[in-house]
Amino acid sequence: MIHSDEKNLPEKLSDDIVSYILEEKLQPGDRLPNESVLAEKLGAGRSSVREAVKLLASRNIVTVRQGSGTYVSASPGVVEDPLGFTFIGDKRKLAADLLEIRFLLEPSVAAWAAARAEEEDIRRIRKLCDETEQLLKEGKDHTKKDVEFHTAIGISSKNLVVPRLMPVINSAVPLFIDLTKNVLRQETIDTHREITEAIAAHDAARASDAMYLHLVYNRRLIREA
Amino acid sequence: MIHSDEKNLPEKLSDDIVSYILEEKLQPGDRLPNESVLAEKLGAGRSSVREAVKLLASRNIVTVRQGSGTYVSASPGVVEDPLGFTFIGDKRKLAADLLEIRFLLEPSVAAWAAARAEEEDIRRIRKLCDETEQLLKEGKDHTKKDVEFHTAIGISSKNLVVPRLMPVINSAVPLFIDLTKNVLRQETIDTHREITEAIAAHDAARASDAMYLHLVYNRRLIREA
Repeated sequence: MIHSDEKNLPEKLSDDIVSYILEEKLQPGDRLPNESVLAEKLGAGRSSVREAVKLLASRNIVTVRQGSGTYVSASPGVVEDPLGFTFIGDKRKLAADLLEIRFLLEPSVAAWAAARAEEEDIRRIRKLCDETEQLLKEGKDHTKKDVEFHTAIGISSKNLVVPRLMPVINSAVPLFIDLTKNVLRQETIDTHREITEAIAAHDAARASDAMYLHLVYNRRLIREA
Repeated sequence: MIHSDEKNLPEKLSDDIVSYILEEKLQPGDRLPNESVLAEKLGAGRSSVREAVKLLASRNIVTVRQGSGTYVSASPGVVEDPLGFTFIGDKRKLAADLLEIRFLLEPSVAAWAAARAEEEDIRRIRKLCDETEQLLKEGKDHTKKDVEFHTAIGISSKNLVVPRLMPVINSAVPLFIDLTKNVLRQETIDTHREITEAIAAHDAARASDAMYLHLVYNRRLIREA
């Protein structure tokens, strides 16, 4: 972290560009003005602006596409490992602790999704449930689709914070994927399906129960591992 | 975000420095080798290493102290606004949604703290409870101490993820501080004290109830606001 009184020019300019994005209400995917236009707007040199854009890219606020331009990122400000799990040495405890957190959050999130999901949300959840099931049946890696399934439920909860938290708490999924691939296949298929149908039926208690059961299977596995 | 095949030299070097921190098991506060030593270790030029260190500082993995050196940050990889709340336009809904999440997490976290807190944890929680109460009685800004109080409870839960989540979910606190300062003073003093005493008595159910009540007061206030 760099304290504000020690900020150099590119760091100050990166703050100015964030203010510009907020003031202009630029949305994810929107294109920023090019380097020379930005430099003029901010009253700075082009090389300083280039440095500032690099800093913003490293924080995933903007995405630089070579030869195309600079865009507001899909989830601006959400970095790859936002809570620094890379720097936690004990990965087994980390996985167990993440599961402890999932028990607190995900049954209620599933209930909110059942109460609040719109038709399009339900379609997306069902599609991801199908795709995950297909990969599981074929014995292929389903990690990515599994995380997308849980994230789609998070989005359907209509709570602004949940979809941003989901990738964090779901970073436990890959930690245990080798185990789950072999042991949990049928349980994952069945509980995912039950969660999906409960949300589609707008049945909050059933969705919460199904998610709880899904997590119980995961916790049993961690105990045995 | 910069895709790996498009990473330039400083970005690749910053990955190498992260690997070095992990391999050498450097801890928060540990000093990194100086620029020329790092440059030699990584087989790179000093100016590229300097750029790489700037990128790591912008992600709060290292802290640069002018004239002293480069150190591993206190919470490496945890950036100031890890979930990008800056970029959510509707701050009122954000505050309400954060409170919804706190209801799911904090009563259980208080219960875990009651079950797992050691003597030193209890001393720290009690000290922060006293300091927050003092500031409230004097009508001074208690935001920082309030967040520290909740974070100390999070640390006492002994769950590795909770202390990293706490600053995120507590970012709702400043959003409502002007309201709480005037209306919630006595309720905050009383419920903080009850939470503290329940944790000190290792009474999990009482700690969970007290935290729940604390959040109920907050939610009532948001409804009325």
